[in-house]
Order: sequence, then structure tokens, then C-alpha cells
Amino acid sequence: MTQMQEARKGRITDEMKAVAEKEGISVQKIIEGLANGRIVIPKNVNGRSRPMGVGKGLKTKINANLGSSSELEKVKWEVEKAKTAVKYGADTIMDLSTGPGLETVREAIMDVVDVPIGTVPVYEAAVTASKSKGAVINMDEDDMFNAIENQARAGVDFITVHCGITRETVEKVKASNRIMGIVSRGGSFLAAWILQNQEENPLYSNYDYLLEVAAEYDVTLSLGDGLRPGCLHDASDVPQIQELVTLGGLVDRARDAGVQVMVEGPGHVPINQIQANMQIQKTVCKEAPFYVLGPLVTDLAPGYDHITSAIGGAIAASSGADFLCYVTPSEHLAIPNVDDVREGVIASKIAAEAADIAKGVNGSWEREVEMAYARRDFDWEKQFGLAFDGEKARKCRQRKPSPDEDMCTMCGDFCAIRIVRDNF
Amino acid sequence: MTQMQEARKGRITDEMKAVAEKEGISVQKIIEGLANGRIVIPKNVNGRSRPMGVGKGLKTKINANLGSSSELEKVKWEVEKAKTAVKYGADTIMDLSTGPGLETVREAIMDVVDVPIGTVPVYEAAVTASKSKGAVINMDEDDMFNAIENQARAGVDFITVHCGITRETVEKVKASNRIMGIVSRGGSFLAAWILQNQEENPLYSNYDYLLEVAAEYDVTLSLGDGLRPGCLHDASDVPQIQELVTLGGLVDRARDAGVQVMVEGPGHVPINQIQANMQIQKTVCKEAPFYVLGPLVTDLAPGYDHITSAIGGAIAASSGADFLCYVTPSEHLAIPNVDDVREGVIASKIAAEAADIAKGVNGSWEREVEMAYARRDFDWEKQFGLAFDGEKARKCRQRKPSPDEDMCTMCGDFCAIRIVRDNF
Repeated sequence: MTQMQEARKGRITDEMKAVAEKEGISVQKIIEGLANGRIVIPKNVNGRSRPMGVGKGLKTKINANLGSSSELEKVKWEVEKAKTAVKYGADTIMDLSTGPGLETVREAIMDVVDVPIGTVPVYEAAVTASKSKGAVINMDEDDMFNAIENQARAGVDFITVHCGITRETVEKVKASNRIMGIVSRGGSFLAAWILQNQEENPLYSNYDYLLEVAAEYDVTLSLGDGLRPGCLHDASDVPQIQELVTLGGLVDRARDAGVQVMVEGPGHVPINQIQANMQIQKTVCKEAPFYVLGPLVTDLAPGYDHITSAIGGAIAASSGADFLCYVTPSEHLAIPNVDDVREGVIASKIAAEAADIAKGVNGSWEREVEMAYARRDFDWEKQFGLAFDGEKARKCRQRKPSPDEDMCTMCGDFCAIRIVRDNF
Repeated sequence: MTQMQEARKGRITDEMKAVAEKEGISVQKIIEGLANGRIVIPKNVNGRSRPMGVGKGLKTKINANLGSSSELEKVKWEVEKAKTAVKYGADTIMDLSTGPGLETVREAIMDVVDVPIGTVPVYEAAVTASKSKGAVINMDEDDMFNAIENQARAGVDFITVHCGITRETVEKVKASNRIMGIVSRGGSFLAAWILQNQEENPLYSNYDYLLEVAAEYDVTLSLGDGLRPGCLHDASDVPQIQELVTLGGLVDRARDAGVQVMVEGPGHVPINQIQANMQIQKTVCKEAPFYVLGPLVTDLAPGYDHITSAIGGAIAASSGADFLCYVTPSEHLAIPNVDDVREGVIASKIAAEAADIAKGVNGSWEREVEMAYARRDFDWEKQFGLAFDGEKARKCRQRKPSPDEDMCTMCGDFCAIRIVRDNF
């Protein structure tokens, strides 16, 4: 039985208890949210992860994407990145490997971290077809479903499935004035497959079978936004919204089958369109947890897209998004290194925290207040302890040691806080 | 005559022409904005800066704060930081030096950059009093006005004056439940002065004289927010709003005197209060250009406050703020170094650009579209040219060279853009 099915029967699982405790809210709220699909707990029956919830009333969660793009010897590097991501607060990790050692990387990551693991199984199908049949578009339906079943069996907690890429939506992309076309890897695989094979996307036409597999292992489906905009110009256009409408229908069918489901969202979006995007997703997809990549609010800052995304992510999450996928400084340029992963995670943590204050979720405001007292009292150790990255903050302060504890070198002797303390 | 006075007489100055050209809008719009106070051109009659406009319908501008906090030998360092700030796109520089070589630093910065220069003259008065009279609170009215006149004569283009710190507002702070009290340096000097001397703030009680000096040199007044919140807990409270109301009255008096005037704003503000803060400033201060520090949307990220501020700044500017003061990664911890300055400027540029897309100001959207085409076409040189920091983007891409031009190591062979290009 899936967590959703258990909840509908009113049965409290260990996972529900653990999530309720972690979030500081009642188990009843968790059960209600699971039953009506506003909350998911991505936890494969074969998985080893600590239970974690995403959705209404819960803390905004963040995901770190990892995964080799080519050579096998990179397993160690990916493992190091996974450890770094979790150390700085990633709530989940998606292994997006497309290298030959795909399974090895995933297993290695699952061995060292205890957060839920997500994947995009069509990558495995595409990579295999590319090697054994000469091209991605030569994969067949069995390749796709075999990859999904393999990964479900292996204990993956949530999978991105681009079920909204259909013959109809692909035609809409062709007829559109998009500059960037399709920038989702999985989306492009399936769109190319549809065009070359002139057949419907098996993940759409055989969605019921997909639901059976998902239900068997309680794999949470993350309905991919294969048509997310790849630049500001393409945002909120017909193909994107058409796909969202399709996904809304698939949410209903997943819920009917007792399968946990989230919906993925854009992408690159002008700042003044973000709130509308969140509101429309929430109505069209009946408040399914919304998992957002970015959104990036400008395309002019390669090298700093963790910042462009943190801006969009903070607005998205405070407008209703539940789950933020991090973006690293190397987005659009190169595969991220360990430093990029750290910076991406921290930027997402900042966005999530900013939003959680607006959402009023448990614990965020209290921690902000604690930090304010620590600052007022020049309690540096407490500040470093509360900080998302206390090490960096400590190093920065120590760069040029302050003569006194009750000041820093920014204002020196003329510290406002000290002057107020001494004169009020 | 000030630019405002010229505009009211319908006379087109070289400065107005230069700003109109730079912004790509008509001189008539600039004249109208100057005449009714919605636009300022901070340009001292003795100054040497390139004309630059701030306000309604213009691009969002960004300021970089610099300045030594102690030793004289740091002049070179400040100069290097000033050059870096301008190189990466700072529209103005504020020299906030409080070290003994205060004038030397300012002169050295003015020698190497051609952007408008701002200062906080009360720092000079306070530092001098601290040395010659033993404490900041021993400065007298003459010290304050002498500093203002000295700096006006020296060609400073805009000055922060904390005229809204009054006996009344200081009492409101004392009666409030603020955790951080006053975190503005200038604000704390004047509040301490008021409390210790039991007199009214000369910058408030002798505001007419301040206006005379400002009019003589056409120094733009930036009415300081001495009571800006220093933590999320203190945001949008009575002392802050009381000060804003006081500043609104002072805006009217400045305009009556033909003096150009901006208003400064918070600070540390929860994300869901930023828009309201902008709207209230715009009504209370009759659309005076709004110059915002941050706002920081969480206090939990020391070491990353350029990001917490970029989030707040983007929302503030897209809700009406005209001018963003950068915040660097070393905020709250140490005096910024050259790298901090670069990161602070870029983060602010990102926030300003995100907002300018929402505001629909000239050129922003066009540049975004250009970048989208450059990405689609794998035109890396064009991408680096359009990027806020092309050097960093180039280095990141070169970190692990791509075998082909039409891909990067992030997705490797499985690049979505390439797949779409080859299959559509």
C-alpha cells in the first residue's frame, strides 16, 4: 500500500509519524494532506531514506541535482557532491546521471546519504538506446518501462516522468514562436521520439501501467515539465500551459490510483509572472505539491544562476511552491563541482527560508528571532551555529580579526549596535 | 540653479540630455520627472561625474558602498574596490569611510571613477568629534554643518542625511519592542547625540539651512532611514513608519526649495512585507525616488547576504524602488574585499535587471532576447559578452573543456537544445 492509500484508510504509518515530528505538526494534518494529495512522502517500499514530506503546511524543501554526464571514474566525485549537498541542507537528491556508470553512481549515492532519492528513468532508457541502437530516438516502449521498473525495484523514491509531452503538445511547440524550444533533457528525448516515430508518448498512452508500477513500490511520480521555458521570452506560453493542463488531468488519475504525485514547474520566468504561474498550477493541478526549478528571473547572469534562481525560488515558494530544485553557479556552462553544489544548496536554503517566513511554517520565524538576539548580543558562536554556512561566516569574520568582540571590521569602532547599547 | 530648478523653468541642461540618451527616452520625460521630483540627477555643480538619473521610468540603478573603517594605508585598497565596482556595473559609489584618511580616500576614489559619488557627512563630524572631543556625542551642530559644507564644496553628488531621527522618533524606538534597536551608523550617532544632549537633531531643526547648502551646490539629498529594521523581527514597525512619515514631510520642503531629494528604505524585511513597504513609501513620500538597502529576506545567511539582498532587492525594485544599494557577502562580518565587492555588485545587477523586465524599462527585454538567441545558437562569445560577468562564465565553461562547441559538460552528449535542433 502507498502512503496515500494508508492515509485514506486512516492508518498511521511510521513515515507519517516521523514527518509530523520533524515538521512539528500533528499526524492528523499529515494524514489529511496525504489522503487528499496535498502532501507526499516520497518513500519507496524498497527505499532506505529517512521519511520526508513535501506539500501544504510543510517546510519548503530543496533538491540537489547530481549525476555524471560522462565518465565512470566520476563516481567518487558525485558521492562527494552528494555528501556536500546533504551537509548544507538538501532535503532530497536527484541522480541525473547519463554516463555509462549510471547504476553505479546511483547506488553509491544511496549508500552515503539518507535523504530520498529521485531519478529520471527515461535517461537510462535513452542512454541505453543511444549505445545499443545508435540513437536516443531508437529506444522503444519496453526500454522506457524497463528503466522505470528497474529503478523502482532499486528503491528510488521519486521519479520524473514527462507524461505531458504528447503529440499534441509537441505540435504546439512547433507552431509556437519559442526561441529555445525544449530545454528539458527528458522532454527533448520524448519530443524527438514522438516526431521521429510518429507515435504517442508511451508514458502518456500507457499511463495506467506507469501508475501500477508506481503503486507497487510507492514511487512518488513527479510529473515533469518537459516544456518549461528555457528563456524569459518563452515563459508562460501556450505549450507550457497546455502541458500543465495535461498534467492536471494526470494528477487526478494518479490520485484515483492511490499514487502519490507532484508536478514540476518552470524554469525561466520574468519576476512579474511567477505568482501567476504558481496560482495557475495550484488550481489546474488541484494543489498537488509543486516542484519548481528556479525560476530564473534573468538570463544575463551565467555563472550566477544560483542567485537568479534564488530570487525566483523565493517568490515561487512564498506564492505556493512546495519544493525547490537548486540551480548552481555552473548552470548553462558546465557540470557542477563541489563548491557549486554548496553554493547552489545555500542559495536554495535562503529562498526556502524567506518563503517559509511568509508561509508561517513552524520554526522559521523563531530561528530568525534567535539570530537577531545573537547579533544584538555579539554572540558570534551562536550566529555561526544558526547560519546556513557557519564555516564561511566564521572565515569571513576572521579574515581581518576584530580588536574587540563587540564589533566587526565593517564599521570598526563606529558600530551602530554598540553605540545604541552604550547610549540608550 | 539645481537640475530641478532648471527643469521647472523648462531649460534643457547637458545633464538632462545625457541622461535621456543613456536611458533611451525623451528629454521631455526627464524634464517632467525632474520638475515634479520623480527623477533626480545627482550631480554637484563642482562634481566631475557622468550624469546619471534615478527614478520613475528609468533603469533601476545600483550603488556600491565603500570606505575604510580604520587605517589610512587602505586608500589603495578602496580605490581598487571602487574600480571593481564600476567595472561590474555600479552606477554610483558611496564612500562611507570613517578612518582617519577620510578625505584622502574620497578624493582618491573620485579621481579614478566617473560615477556620481555619495557620502554620509555626519560620519566626518562624528569621527572628528570622537578624536578631538573624546566621543561621537560631543560633536556639535557646527561640526555637522561644516562637514556637509566641506563635502558639498568638494563635489560630492549626493549625501545621506538622517533628518528623520528626531526626539519623537527616538522615544518611539525606546518604547518599542525592537530587538536590534538602531543599526544605521548615522542613525545611531544622531540618536545617541539626541539622548545625551537632550536637544533636537540639528539636521531636522535646521533643515532649511541644509536645503540652502544643498541648493547652492545642487547636492541631491538622500533622506536616510536611520530607523530601518536591523532584523526581520523589527520590520515595518512604528519607529520605522514614523520616520518615513517625517521624511515624507521633508520631501515636500526640499521640493519647495528646488532641492533634489531621494528617500532611503529598509533593511531587513520579510518577503511578504516588501511590496507594502514600497507602496507606502511611494504614497507617503509622493513618489520621491526610493533608494533601498537590501532588503534582506532572512537573517540566517551571514556570508551570503548578497543573495538575501538580491531577493529582497528584486522584489523591492519590481514593486517601485528605483535605486538599490548593494550588500556584499561580508555584510555583518567584516569590511568587504575586492571579491566581495564584485559579488555584491553582480547580485544587485541581477536584482535590478529582474525588476527592469517587470518595469518594462528600455533595453532590458531586448538584451534577454539576444541572450536567448545566443544560447540557442551555442554562440558562446556572444553569451559571455552579454553576461554581467563574462569572465566568470568563460572560466566556468573552460573548467572542463567540452569536446564540441554545441554542448557543455552539464548534459554532455545529451544536450536538449542539440536534440531539438537535430530532430525538429
